[in-house]
Amino acid sequence: MKQILLIGAGKSATVLIDYLLNNAGTYGWHLTIGDADPHTAASKLKGHSHGSVTLFNADDDSTRDELVSRADLVISMLPATMHVPVAHSCIKFGKHLITASYVSPEMAVLDEQAKERGCVLLNEMGLDPGIDHMSALQIIHRIQNEGGKITSFKSFTGGLVAPESIDNPWGYKFTWNPRNVIVAGQSTARYLHNCKLKFIPYNRLFKNVEQFDIAGLGMLEGYANRDSLGYIEPYNLHGISTMLRGTLRYKNYCNAWDCFVQLGLTDDSFIIPHSENLSYIELVQSLLPEGITADEASLIAFLGLDNRPELFAMLQWTGIFSNDKAGIPDASPARLLQHLLEQKWKLNPGDLDLVVMLHEFEYTLNGQAKKVTSTLALKGDDALHTAMAKTVGLPVAIAAKLILTGKWQLSGVKIPNEPLIYNPVLQELEEHGVIFNEIVT
Amino acid sequence: MKQILLIGAGKSATVLIDYLLNNAGTYGWHLTIGDADPHTAASKLKGHSHGSVTLFNADDDSTRDELVSRADLVISMLPATMHVPVAHSCIKFGKHLITASYVSPEMAVLDEQAKERGCVLLNEMGLDPGIDHMSALQIIHRIQNEGGKITSFKSFTGGLVAPESIDNPWGYKFTWNPRNVIVAGQSTARYLHNCKLKFIPYNRLFKNVEQFDIAGLGMLEGYANRDSLGYIEPYNLHGISTMLRGTLRYKNYCNAWDCFVQLGLTDDSFIIPHSENLSYIELVQSLLPEGITADEASLIAFLGLDNRPELFAMLQWTGIFSNDKAGIPDASPARLLQHLLEQKWKLNPGDLDLVVMLHEFEYTLNGQAKKVTSTLALKGDDALHTAMAKTVGLPVAIAAKLILTGKWQLSGVKIPNEPLIYNPVLQELEEHGVIFNEIVT
Repeated sequence: MKQILLIGAGKSATVLIDYLLNNAGTYGWHLTIGDADPHTAASKLKGHSHGSVTLFNADDDSTRDELVSRADLVISMLPATMHVPVAHSCIKFGKHLITASYVSPEMAVLDEQAKERGCVLLNEMGLDPGIDHMSALQIIHRIQNEGGKITSFKSFTGGLVAPESIDNPWGYKFTWNPRNVIVAGQSTARYLHNCKLKFIPYNRLFKNVEQFDIAGLGMLEGYANRDSLGYIEPYNLHGISTMLRGTLRYKNYCNAWDCFVQLGLTDDSFIIPHSENLSYIELVQSLLPEGITADEASLIAFLGLDNRPELFAMLQWTGIFSNDKAGIPDASPARLLQHLLEQKWKLNPGDLDLVVMLHEFEYTLNGQAKKVTSTLALKGDDALHTAMAKTVGLPVAIAAKLILTGKWQLSGVKIPNEPLIYNPVLQELEEHGVIFNEIVT
Repeated sequence: MKQILLIGAGKSATVLIDYLLNNAGTYGWHLTIGDADPHTAASKLKGHSHGSVTLFNADDDSTRDELVSRADLVISMLPATMHVPVAHSCIKFGKHLITASYVSPEMAVLDEQAKERGCVLLNEMGLDPGIDHMSALQIIHRIQNEGGKITSFKSFTGGLVAPESIDNPWGYKFTWNPRNVIVAGQSTARYLHNCKLKFIPYNRLFKNVEQFDIAGLGMLEGYANRDSLGYIEPYNLHGISTMLRGTLRYKNYCNAWDCFVQLGLTDDSFIIPHSENLSYIELVQSLLPEGITADEASLIAFLGLDNRPELFAMLQWTGIFSNDKAGIPDASPARLLQHLLEQKWKLNPGDLDLVVMLHEFEYTLNGQAKKVTSTLALKGDDALHTAMAKTVGLPVAIAAKLILTGKWQLSGVKIPNEPLIYNPVLQELEEHGVIFNEIVT
């Protein structure tokens, strides 16, 4: 029996656990789930004979060491900042590790040690980072191997709700960490456009929107992510003219969200005194300049929405102009806004989520200008088997299988940036419905 | 001989050193200056028989301990973050300490220990913090003792150049740390206005300007400081309706600076790749939205300056639209802007600086509404004896005298918030020309 230790059995681990259990009989695996909440973890095993659960406390070094020492492969689905102690244990006992998170500097320095111990610390095996790298690099390497020169690469990803589950004017519900959505974009966006550096300050980010018409989904719009420039080197795109990564939302979301930004409602930099006593409309009033009252006409004028009544209706729908109170002490404006939206942007039973990823390449081949668009639009099956859980969990699960069955002989700190890794993973993802639709023009 | 140890002999210590040496004969003091650059420090002693210089290395604990152990009183003019190790040495040997910096949390917790050792750690003895507290509290306590109720307190301070030294359209030159000027206001401003909390996001801060007509100086304008709410409790102003602290500039400065903010030129949150190759106009272009070129007409339209040609002229005067390069690697936009302005906003030989402080109180006394305005406008004497060096150095120096001559019996962590401290200091400041002009209406 090969021993798999999965640490952290949150929402994104559901599909991963199902995959491992479904294959446990065939390949002779036993899955141990370590979680701070063993009861919830146990419910995901559904009494499977190849699974068991153990209490995992992130601060307990000796238990972690003991669990890792008994495993053949470790999967950490903990929050991104908590992987490094696990990685240290893996090196100590020469065990393989898979995560779905970015390689942190503390992880990167373990490369030599992991190589010496003959184990791989394979990171960025989720959706973003993960499927974004794999699907883009497969096309980049193909174009480059054909002798093409890539001049432009734009890539957008969004965690959305399926069109049939939209019942609010934003076309948005939280399918992932709400806090990340509230403070999204607060670092200056950096990208390359026609060979020129471009920087977008936060207060203009949600005004700079690019539109995409995606079959079956209608118009989506995208805003730029923090740092697109940092992808030029790892994607081997030196000399490219345009390089932009961004986040997708349904139409109007960005312009309405910009109103929150302009008001200062996404500010997470300070604590409001006695925030528990503040109503939402009082919060809005506190952010308006002296002499402007928070009535409808003044707000429309302040936000410049005279010709965009649909945007004002979106703001109104959230309840941000109501007398309700979040009742949260020591909160920032962003924290209060998050509380409000967590109630309004809640998935209903039966709602399906949607993951969309869009790559647009422009390149020249034999003197001809060409364009290839590759699109993934994947819906969740139900509230547990969400598109998010599939796209984060399946690459990890497939990687686990390829390591445990000896298909990969990897060591050191790795990300899925080579054909040996991404080809078999993308191939099996297709079998699970994670299919990119490619159009070349 | 009483031994005074002064650590850090930078620009702001000139007047302080002169005061201590001038009084050294009368009171029997010896001044030892500890500095990382003993040559410059020695030049400030001008061979005075009561002074000497020693090398001071902030990382060398044993030398610091030895120097402190031999002193009767220690003055730290180091950067604000470097006082705490000095305070620890002072407690170890039971020595008094004076600084011109805010009480940090690490300093505050030393209160009990300092009391036990019978020494005072007297902080906030400069201009701001320092003279601002003392001059405001003297009026606050006077009004309150008369039975008055303060309803509004606005206080603005500016480190400026004297009107006769203005030879640029901004009316501004660096008389203090340039970096602080470049990144000023990047935390959300919080204040109280008519009993309501008010928050001003950074991208609106320099649009929200209050104007003041100050005799002999013409129109000044002020923008709100980071946190005015935090002063309500230490100033004993519970129940006040309006409480605002801010920074003063000459007219038009704030609106022109807002253009830099809107462009993103004050952004210090990221490093520009190959910033050494970027010209200023290329930097501006990188911050403009796609499709807007950095020509005069487009910039005027983008910044909304059609009716404010004087503001565009101010921007142009800086050279920010030129092909010049800062040539600095690994720089943020803010760092490049700082480099440019350090050349343009340089004090010329003979230029005089100016410190302005303005307090406006509204209060009711015996049912009558009253207003008192208290204004300080102090010019420097020359390039060494600047208004900044006087207003930072003199309160520290006077406090040193009052401690060494036994006029004060203080212990623990203190700031100048009680009459015992502020009355004699303000009185002697007047003898040195630091005079507030009060108008009651």
